[in-house]
Amino acid sequence: MTYDTLVHNGIVLTVNPDFDIFSPGFVGIRNSRIAALGPAAVGAARPQAAVCIDARGGIIMPGLVNTHTHLPMTLFRGLADDLPLEKWLHDHIFPAERQHISPATVGWGARLACAEMLLSGTTTCCDGYFLENQVAAAVADSGMRAVLGQGIIDFAAPGVPDPKDNITAARDFLAHCRSRSPLISPAVFCHSPYTCSAETLRAAKALAAEFGALFQIHAAETRQECDESRARHGVSPIAYLDGLGLLTPGTLLVHCVWADERDIARIAAGGAAISHNPQSNMKLASGIAPVPEFLAAGITVGLGTDGCASNNDLDLFHEMDTAAKLHKVRSGDPTACAARTVIEMATIRGAEAIGLGAVSGSLELGKAADITVLATDAPHLVPIYHPASHLVYTARGDDVREVFVAGRHLVANGRLQSLDVGEIRREVTAIARKIRPSTGS
Amino acid sequence: MTYDTLVHNGIVLTVNPDFDIFSPGFVGIRNSRIAALGPAAVGAARPQAAVCIDARGGIIMPGLVNTHTHLPMTLFRGLADDLPLEKWLHDHIFPAERQHISPATVGWGARLACAEMLLSGTTTCCDGYFLENQVAAAVADSGMRAVLGQGIIDFAAPGVPDPKDNITAARDFLAHCRSRSPLISPAVFCHSPYTCSAETLRAAKALAAEFGALFQIHAAETRQECDESRARHGVSPIAYLDGLGLLTPGTLLVHCVWADERDIARIAAGGAAISHNPQSNMKLASGIAPVPEFLAAGITVGLGTDGCASNNDLDLFHEMDTAAKLHKVRSGDPTACAARTVIEMATIRGAEAIGLGAVSGSLELGKAADITVLATDAPHLVPIYHPASHLVYTARGDDVREVFVAGRHLVANGRLQSLDVGEIRREVTAIARKIRPSTGS
Repeated sequence: MTYDTLVHNGIVLTVNPDFDIFSPGFVGIRNSRIAALGPAAVGAARPQAAVCIDARGGIIMPGLVNTHTHLPMTLFRGLADDLPLEKWLHDHIFPAERQHISPATVGWGARLACAEMLLSGTTTCCDGYFLENQVAAAVADSGMRAVLGQGIIDFAAPGVPDPKDNITAARDFLAHCRSRSPLISPAVFCHSPYTCSAETLRAAKALAAEFGALFQIHAAETRQECDESRARHGVSPIAYLDGLGLLTPGTLLVHCVWADERDIARIAAGGAAISHNPQSNMKLASGIAPVPEFLAAGITVGLGTDGCASNNDLDLFHEMDTAAKLHKVRSGDPTACAARTVIEMATIRGAEAIGLGAVSGSLELGKAADITVLATDAPHLVPIYHPASHLVYTARGDDVREVFVAGRHLVANGRLQSLDVGEIRREVTAIARKIRPSTGS
Repeated sequence: MTYDTLVHNGIVLTVNPDFDIFSPGFVGIRNSRIAALGPAAVGAARPQAAVCIDARGGIIMPGLVNTHTHLPMTLFRGLADDLPLEKWLHDHIFPAERQHISPATVGWGARLACAEMLLSGTTTCCDGYFLENQVAAAVADSGMRAVLGQGIIDFAAPGVPDPKDNITAARDFLAHCRSRSPLISPAVFCHSPYTCSAETLRAAKALAAEFGALFQIHAAETRQECDESRARHGVSPIAYLDGLGLLTPGTLLVHCVWADERDIARIAAGGAAISHNPQSNMKLASGIAPVPEFLAAGITVGLGTDGCASNNDLDLFHEMDTAAKLHKVRSGDPTACAARTVIEMATIRGAEAIGLGAVSGSLELGKAADITVLATDAPHLVPIYHPASHLVYTARGDDVREVFVAGRHLVANGRLQSLDVGEIRREVTAIARKIRPSTGS
């Protein structure tokens, strides 16, 4: 029995239902899938393979799943920070989007994001933006797996100047996107309950259902949003969406910072999943989502970085560390959001939340070979008592050495194989100089 | 005019009182000090220097200052996480310290810590532990700058089996440590108001004053500590220390999570400084220190990582990001702890807090050449609108390419020059296998 690729001589962290760890172990890849994995038997011959990748004692784990991104917003990374939310949006982000978002800039921003994600061990993302067909082209070039949602909002938006066309534009995307790459699942990204009418929300969910696609929506992000929802609709944003019949399986609620007990019960009963974005919620001072309560209610919770304008990076290792620590200090309970729980959120639960639980998110026989290998020889990873602890509390995106998506070797010895990072840097820097002329190299 | 070393072709972030940034700029080093710095004049010839380091468009900044560490605790990195505080301490950390802390293990743990700190851009640390002379030997070998405090506690401790000898042991350390390295300032590390008697606390502060040394003490870390202080002494830990006359300049209060308005007024009036350790306070679920209130009261606040058992790394870039975001979400104010404020905490304010404000912590003429250079070509640092934003919100320890301490080039092109990382890894792994026999490589 031979494999296309064998990844061996590492600690295999499967994130299967038993959270099995093989130390040392191996993973065999054939026809883009995991064809074998397990502990390395002492004295046994190494399995035959066309290509052998030596993990050199590092950690072999499922590729990370980022459940909420706005990829082109890498263009605005660090453009404006430390500002009141309204000023940040209306004086900086919205004007920059109006003036500088075009098919070309969206493509370069998305390419930069894919390069950053792959180099930091993320193999799948769930994105929502406008001109999403350009995002799809970039993602396809990168070789990543992705769920991509064309934006729907009841305002003029890039590529959709008349909001009356927003559902039609989303339908076109759903109909034509999948041909880009077998690794891309088209989706619907409805901006929020406060920027879309009830009619738009219902039509968008019906469209998603028609295509069997994910329905993503920002919800209950800020206290102001909740106050306004109560003033306008008499109920919380979650209760409002529930009343429209939108909390069903296939819905991904992004943020849910301001969800009370009744909201949580509604989400659990309906079967919607949640994307938790702790660093974005902290940086924008939105609040802290009640994640331990979500988990206790049985809700599927994935981890996300949000866009680069409000984070300012796409490093899920950093996000795992933040999630694990933030919920401990919020609850006063140092056992909250333990390492295993957070790793599951960043892998298998994230995959489940975006409809890819049967495909990716864990190292199990027959699943796609979406694999990240970390080097563990840097001082900050010495010694290793528990590999799961290291992934959450000390590993960084830079520790990633090898990345496979559907068996394709996209990062080899820390270098990206599918995109030209130098070209992307030059193009994005040129765009950034138009956004802010004094921008450095 | 020639220099020993010229660092050029980068963005110079001085962290001087005006927070001047020269883009591009240069720094000239002579006789271990900063002999010149400024913007690079267009068309001007490059200054003459024996060694020229091309920053390649990266960021040239003051070396970071970690105001609270327990360096040997790298040995326990990830040994036990996600546990209730008492169980973590009494079932894991204290037994491991009793059984495995010796002069030899302290030395290797401290070497590992120095390697990690230098490679992630930290040039100065303020440490407190036992067998601190072994820590001093390791720090001297590494070439770092440090304030090192021999531990004082009214219990048996490594190297001080009879607590009656704790002041004498600290005196010996103060008397003999400085000869190790001109870059080491000996200090006193009194464990806490709840593990030292009033007599010990007063004697320790008097000893520090006699030597002109820093007096470090953990204070007001947990709610339980505050409750017990009120029950035992009738006042908060800060008020108790104030009553003993310990809140004077030269005192560094570590944590201060549970400081109320009156405590803050006492600290400000007394002139003590604070070491803020946000990740440790989050991971142990201790709480969130009121840092914006400290700053508003005019208190000098530095940043610290705490020991590796409660963080689990020594990366101050990561700590800056956490500090900036945590205080935004705690206060509900996205302008709290802006990037500049946090960078100052991690550099000049930290240096001031540990008594080195005239020596290090900023790039200014005549100061020691303690310099960190970051590469900015990785995707997560593209584009650069504001270098200060990047240092806080997206840079990572791994972006550090060059580090100088007192003009000595300790990290060159990302490689540590002063210690053998491979040897340290082997020795620490061997120690870790004794602590937990199933430990990986």
